[in-house]
Amino acid sequence: MDASITIKKLEFRRRMGTKMTYKKQLIMLPGPTNVPERVMNAMTKPIINHRGPEFRELYDSLLKKLRYAFQTKNDVFTLTSSGTGGVECAISNILSPGDKVLVPVNGVFSQRLKEKIETFGGSPIEIPVKWGAAATPDQIADAAEGQDVKAIAVVYNETSTGVTARVLNEIGKIAEEHDALYIVDAISILGGDELPVDKWGIDICIAGSQKCLACPPGLALISISGHAWEVIRQTRSKAYYFNLLKIQEFHERKETPFTPALTLWYALDEALTMLEEEGLEKRIKRHEECARAFYDAVREFGLEPFADEHWLSNTVIAVKNPPGITDKEIRDLMREKHGVVIAGGMGQLKGTMFRIGSMGIITGREVAATVQALRSSLEELGYFK
Amino acid sequence: MDASITIKKLEFRRRMGTKMTYKKQLIMLPGPTNVPERVMNAMTKPIINHRGPEFRELYDSLLKKLRYAFQTKNDVFTLTSSGTGGVECAISNILSPGDKVLVPVNGVFSQRLKEKIETFGGSPIEIPVKWGAAATPDQIADAAEGQDVKAIAVVYNETSTGVTARVLNEIGKIAEEHDALYIVDAISILGGDELPVDKWGIDICIAGSQKCLACPPGLALISISGHAWEVIRQTRSKAYYFNLLKIQEFHERKETPFTPALTLWYALDEALTMLEEEGLEKRIKRHEECARAFYDAVREFGLEPFADEHWLSNTVIAVKNPPGITDKEIRDLMREKHGVVIAGGMGQLKGTMFRIGSMGIITGREVAATVQALRSSLEELGYFK
Repeated sequence: MDASITIKKLEFRRRMGTKMTYKKQLIMLPGPTNVPERVMNAMTKPIINHRGPEFRELYDSLLKKLRYAFQTKNDVFTLTSSGTGGVECAISNILSPGDKVLVPVNGVFSQRLKEKIETFGGSPIEIPVKWGAAATPDQIADAAEGQDVKAIAVVYNETSTGVTARVLNEIGKIAEEHDALYIVDAISILGGDELPVDKWGIDICIAGSQKCLACPPGLALISISGHAWEVIRQTRSKAYYFNLLKIQEFHERKETPFTPALTLWYALDEALTMLEEEGLEKRIKRHEECARAFYDAVREFGLEPFADEHWLSNTVIAVKNPPGITDKEIRDLMREKHGVVIAGGMGQLKGTMFRIGSMGIITGREVAATVQALRSSLEELGYFK
Repeated sequence: MDASITIKKLEFRRRMGTKMTYKKQLIMLPGPTNVPERVMNAMTKPIINHRGPEFRELYDSLLKKLRYAFQTKNDVFTLTSSGTGGVECAISNILSPGDKVLVPVNGVFSQRLKEKIETFGGSPIEIPVKWGAAATPDQIADAAEGQDVKAIAVVYNETSTGVTARVLNEIGKIAEEHDALYIVDAISILGGDELPVDKWGIDICIAGSQKCLACPPGLALISISGHAWEVIRQTRSKAYYFNLLKIQEFHERKETPFTPALTLWYALDEALTMLEEEGLEKRIKRHEECARAFYDAVREFGLEPFADEHWLSNTVIAVKNPPGITDKEIRDLMREKHGVVIAGGMGQLKGTMFRIGSMGIITGREVAATVQALRSSLEELGYFK
């Protein structure tokens, strides 16, 4: 199918209020993303007292909207940190020395997850998975068999490989059978793909502000179930800045234990309002459609996605370098000539691929501009000869 | 001396570019503070790639300006966290189990500092000090005597009591004699009082974005000396999000290990430009003058500062509640009738005092408005009868 047709079929959805500040660059990174003007402007609201009544209103508003985004009745907390800080928060609050945690490793971020389990005293049981695929429920059930597993921790969307583990529901059932906590790193996917936290039995779910929610970076979001709270209370972690018991204590009075990044809270509140206005279902569908257009274009160009067909991500399009052309050449041309910014590979994948973030307020317009810049850069590099 | 005269003597310094967004509220908290419009607007600059060339320029710019603010040749790092995260970063990267750390405790924040030393495996040697005073160099020298002290950690400005330990230079010499690391929590004071980091031999100095630098909250700043790096390398801390070795590794390529709060970096860069334009010396003098006007007014009203005369802070004006009137009554009236927001007491001092933050772009105008609101609120509460 001709990619340009797919692209044209995508609505531009102006009604969503996604009026972009089209400055020099179109940011097509796997986070941060382009941020809508109204979200950027929200940051300039006057400073308020983070121990005063206005903040408590903001706290309530954010909590209500985050519950919608996470599809959960659990409390969802906003941390001043990157997504990595959010994952550290999850791991460091539930582990006692030697606790076994099952963790499939299929990329840079699941490697980091495993590192964190080790760092905070846990004993990771790694399920090694081919980079480009995700662990199947069978692999996870086998690894859990006969083990006293404290938790199963999964990266839902491996940002480094463009792989989405679309088996979270099944893994949740395995976690339940083993009475294990179920921890999901959903940093680069919440809002861009299905993720009904309660329905899938996820105890701790972590997301980032700067991905599919199209807010600037600097906030991590974390939902905590009743089961998780039991474990957290037993653990009495030595975490300080990321201590969930302290966060919970201040939650009672709708405050944070330490000064929050107030202006980013304003932005997140506005970004979540936009999510409500659009509707979660539509936003997910939009991500799906844009990703499909990207994959169609990539294949039309004779390029190959890094991830196996079965696991292709709707938020990160990872593409193998064409023979004889480096991603650096492609990325430099796209940025310098077309003002379109995409990413390269990470860790051991550096120099082997380019990655397009298709997240947040992505529409056919951004897809078309990116595909056009890619085509033209490949052309200039002699790829189509 | 009549306070109103002191206030009138203060220049308004419009040339500084402190054009405020005078919205409903004048924020006179001990952080966050009022943020100048140009700093707020800086946050709305377009999103860039935090692994791209524009970010490396921003990184350089911030580093250069932070060195000026800290008066240091050391590297200064920008963390996405509150000030507390910055202190956690300092403590968690230098301590091995059982390491002795000397720490004077004279308020809520030095108590927190002591807690962090315990949390991260150290053995704090507490120097208990009357709340309202600071430890003298003699007290510190006595406590260090004959002890194998790894570090001396001091809160320069106790935000909870309005006390500034203006003996940092002398303490630095004691640290040097004992070959101990010298750690200074300067969160609520950097830019508002003397703090020549290198001259005073400070190994690790921590500041916050939302205090005297008049930037929104969400960033902690931390300077690290050569001596500190030696200890950090030996320690090989288990910190993850706050791991300084990892931060140093990415520093080489002018990046951060994890996604930075980009829009806050824009704001901080602009706030530091304003500091350069004004000049550090003038900014400190301005804080001094505004504080003097506040203390004069407080005494004219027959109220009493919480801190001993000798240690009065130039950035936090802590005032004991007048007999029969609660700080809540005063604060509520000031906020609701006059749009001036001040703080109450913290921890064990809750209900005993109010605190005025006199930080950042503070001028005679803000002092006058605050004093006027205080006078009128006290009047309404029957204080002057």
